[in-house]
Amino acid sequence: MSATDLETLLTQDRSAVETRCGELLETFAGEHDGMREAMAYSLLGGGKRLRPLLCLWTADLAGGGDRSAALDAACAIECVHTYSLVHDDLPCMDDDDMRRGKPSSHRRFDEATAVLTGDALLTLAFQVLSALNQRHPSVDADTGLTALRALCGAAGTGGLITGQALDLKPDLRGGLEAVKRIHENKTAGLISVSMEIGAILGGGGEAVRRSVRDAGRLTGLAFQIVDDLLDLEMDEETLGKTPGKDVKTGKLTWPAAAGPDQARAEAARLLADGLEALPPGGAKGPLGTLLRQLVERRA
Amino acid sequence: MSATDLETLLTQDRSAVETRCGELLETFAGEHDGMREAMAYSLLGGGKRLRPLLCLWTADLAGGGDRSAALDAACAIECVHTYSLVHDDLPCMDDDDMRRGKPSSHRRFDEATAVLTGDALLTLAFQVLSALNQRHPSVDADTGLTALRALCGAAGTGGLITGQALDLKPDLRGGLEAVKRIHENKTAGLISVSMEIGAILGGGGEAVRRSVRDAGRLTGLAFQIVDDLLDLEMDEETLGKTPGKDVKTGKLTWPAAAGPDQARAEAARLLADGLEALPPGGAKGPLGTLLRQLVERRA
Repeated sequence: MSATDLETLLTQDRSAVETRCGELLETFAGEHDGMREAMAYSLLGGGKRLRPLLCLWTADLAGGGDRSAALDAACAIECVHTYSLVHDDLPCMDDDDMRRGKPSSHRRFDEATAVLTGDALLTLAFQVLSALNQRHPSVDADTGLTALRALCGAAGTGGLITGQALDLKPDLRGGLEAVKRIHENKTAGLISVSMEIGAILGGGGEAVRRSVRDAGRLTGLAFQIVDDLLDLEMDEETLGKTPGKDVKTGKLTWPAAAGPDQARAEAARLLADGLEALPPGGAKGPLGTLLRQLVERRA
Repeated sequence: MSATDLETLLTQDRSAVETRCGELLETFAGEHDGMREAMAYSLLGGGKRLRPLLCLWTADLAGGGDRSAALDAACAIECVHTYSLVHDDLPCMDDDDMRRGKPSSHRRFDEATAVLTGDALLTLAFQVLSALNQRHPSVDADTGLTALRALCGAAGTGGLITGQALDLKPDLRGGLEAVKRIHENKTAGLISVSMEIGAILGGGGEAVRRSVRDAGRLTGLAFQIVDDLLDLEMDEETLGKTPGKDVKTGKLTWPAAAGPDQARAEAARLLADGLEALPPGGAKGPLGTLLRQLVERRA
């Protein structure tokens, strides 16, 4: 797939995700104007929408199914991702003032609002998935529950939460194994489940689910390594968040543990293995092209 | 039902809830020892287990169904309730040092752990409900999803979160209407959905669901009024949390807005209406007896 074709598809589907996130927020966000505003500020305020795109494009690859149902699931994943950013940015966690190029939720509002906004977005994700079969008659109840279980698994202490807990108190003697454990639970875990949920809604069988889960884990690790390399190299405006922070806070990263050159080589190896793990037709299609671009990016 | 019989059933089912919460935590809590410890500290550390008991006993009233499935759902509700306590106690929220007679989560551990513990318990609740039909063959996928949608509705901005947001910035000129809106979203909302989920799993039809939902809302309001009255009157040891806090913090409560005598009368009226709303046989059985005891308690 050419870079221009990818760009067209990216723009189109990113806009579909943005629009649908806004609609779901309107539908489910309840009567409290302040909460709706704070949720919209974080959920609709920019972001690359990688995870929803990976979900959608894996659904396409797995067979398609009902694309509007995959879009809802993609938005649920973006809600979980945004919730984790809002809570991770809190002063008691990573204490980050900037996110997606603007003040983080607790800076724009206050800490209490940021805690509640994260809670609300996490709940919204499950609300959207549990209503999937009601809003999309082509989705049966079992498929909805399968997607729900996958997302719960990746969001809870089987994933994101354990990753963040490890990240807050890293095992500094653990070296690369400790870094890997953090990333497998956080970034790679959520990317992997985004693709798995795409496969579930696209109607892919167990074999397809397993292969996209592996591909997601491998390329997700590569993506995080590149993110940490860029944090070393870039300025705030390009990055959209505070740069050089990992070094300042003594954070355990792949480049810090293995050196930048080896980290770069590892990212390339993980990308190759991840593309190899995709089901037939995956590596050359939009999904593979996007994964390659994510790891090979320079910004 | 006699007070002794109620006490026997209470002790037995409370212990069933405790045991099952512990098992579910073991099953789903993942590999991070610190997180498992913090989740267990808050989830298993005392508490009256009212909401799970209301869920279980409503299931019994609605027809029974598979009691072990209703028990899992009851534990999921307790996870949501505990999550809301852990987050509400945070310094940026209600800033409470004591909970259930011991230091609150952020005092026992730290703020980051408390935020993550709440997040983890909320996710665990959805994880348990989304696995219901897998672990209990008598529960079909649709019933699991119906329970999930009900819990999401009451936990999100359609309930708890809006209630807490209103509680943090109360409309002080709003008087009783503002107080009622807070309690309907928080305490009464969660009590109401606990009973509704019991009805769903007990196999009750739409009419039963509606009547227990109403009964839960009315008695839940009464319960909260009594809670606020007791906060005015009791000492820390008996209360298990910091007493007199509502007055000190200028919190909007029913007794503060209407005076203690009128609040007491209103609680009695709401209780009578709530018991009246229960399905046939409800008011005289364990469910009605417990609801009456909750509102008529002096401690």
